[in-house]
Parts: sequence; C-alpha cells; structure tokens
Amino acid sequence: MTASTVNLAHALAALDGPYRPGIVAHYNTNKVAVVKVRGDFVWHSHQDTDDFFLVLAGRMTIRLRDRPDVVLEAGELYVVPAGVEHCPTADEECHVLLIEPDGTVNTGEAGGPLTAPEREL
Amino acid sequence: MTASTVNLAHALAALDGPYRPGIVAHYNTNKVAVVKVRGDFVWHSHQDTDDFFLVLAGRMTIRLRDRPDVVLEAGELYVVPAGVEHCPTADEECHVLLIEPDGTVNTGEAGGPLTAPEREL
Repeated sequence: MTASTVNLAHALAALDGPYRPGIVAHYNTNKVAVVKVRGDFVWHSHQDTDDFFLVLAGRMTIRLRDRPDVVLEAGELYVVPAGVEHCPTADEECHVLLIEPDGTVNTGEAGGPLTAPEREL
Repeated sequence: MTASTVNLAHALAALDGPYRPGIVAHYNTNKVAVVKVRGDFVWHSHQDTDDFFLVLAGRMTIRLRDRPDVVLEAGELYVVPAGVEHCPTADEECHVLLIEPDGTVNTGEAGGPLTAPEREL
C-alpha cells in the first residue's frame, strides 16, 4: 500500500453503519464506494445506469422483480441492468464495493429514509 | 452464487497466462475484466480514460512516470488517471480486476506484442 492507494478493509472500518456508503475513488465520471449491507434496503431502480456490486466479505442477496434472486458471496459480482428494480438485503453484515455514476442517488427513484448523501471517505 | 453472477476466482482459473485479460461483465459502456499479472507489462497510457485496478490476490506494482511507484496488495485499488504513463509489474503472479471503457486497448498508445484482443470469458 502507498499513500495514494485505497485499502478497502480500512475504508470499510471507517463506515458507521449499514447502507451509508463512502466514496473511496473516482473512475472517469463514476464514484467507487464501499458500503456495509445488513437487513433490507428499499426496492428501487436507476433508469439511466447499471449498478455494479462486488461482495468483498459476507453474503448478500439482490432481489429482482420477476427474476430469481441473485445471491453473491465474497469474490462475486453482479451488474444490475439499468431500469431493473432491485432490493439488496443481507441477514448478516456484508461488505460491498459499488460503482455508479457520480451523482447517483443510492435509493434511485424510490427515495425515503435510507437515502444517503454522497460523501468521500 | 447464481447463474448470472460472476465468480472472480473461477474466471481467473479460466485465463491461460499473464496479461491476457478476460471480460466478465459490462457496466454501462465499460468492460469489467480479470487479468493475471506477472513480470513487466509495457509502459503505456490511455489519453481518454482512467484505468481502474483492484488487486484480488498477490501484490502488484504500478510504475508511474515522475511519481512514486504504487504498490497494491490484495484488497487494494488504484485508479491511474487518464494520460498518465504507467507500467504494471509483479514479481509473482497477481490477480487483478480491471475496469476500462469498452474498446480500450490494453497497451494503450504503446501497442506491441502484449496487445491482447478483447475477449469475453
């Protein structure tokens, strides 16, 4: 590790609870963020963008409308296509790397109390 | 793991040697690829895009012109800014997740024998 790199475990340790992502880097016009997942998120979609999920530790489920659930273990990724309604959930705390365009709202079109501000770690 | 997910270890096991990336997913207009890194790559740059590297296993060094080397261990990421000349290298085999825009040539402006065709795993 050097000063300009991102250590994902260190970044996750700085998060204060589930569903409060922290941005660790930017790639072109996208934000790269870490987030803790535990319990149910909200059903939502992003009309204009895919949603990239990579599980770093633990297990999460991404529920999808009219399709089978996607179950991800550590070292597994899934890209939710733009416009597809989905609901992340995890029985136990799970650590996830997210990539979305800068400005994407975590709850998409749904809004609600789990909407988190964009913040840099 | 479900049918539509990507298991990165399985994907890496399907690669036949270093510096021959395999695409595992697409995120908007970007390709998500895995690659084995061993030995020196070539000095190159991408004028129009950042270059996302996440080390999954092992250790790699990204040499940069006029800046200190970036050393990445497993679970660490770095985004090479657009236009910055860089040269990945690893003493021992290292497994890396890459994200670049679709159509990006792995050797950038440099070309040469390590230029690999885009291929889906």
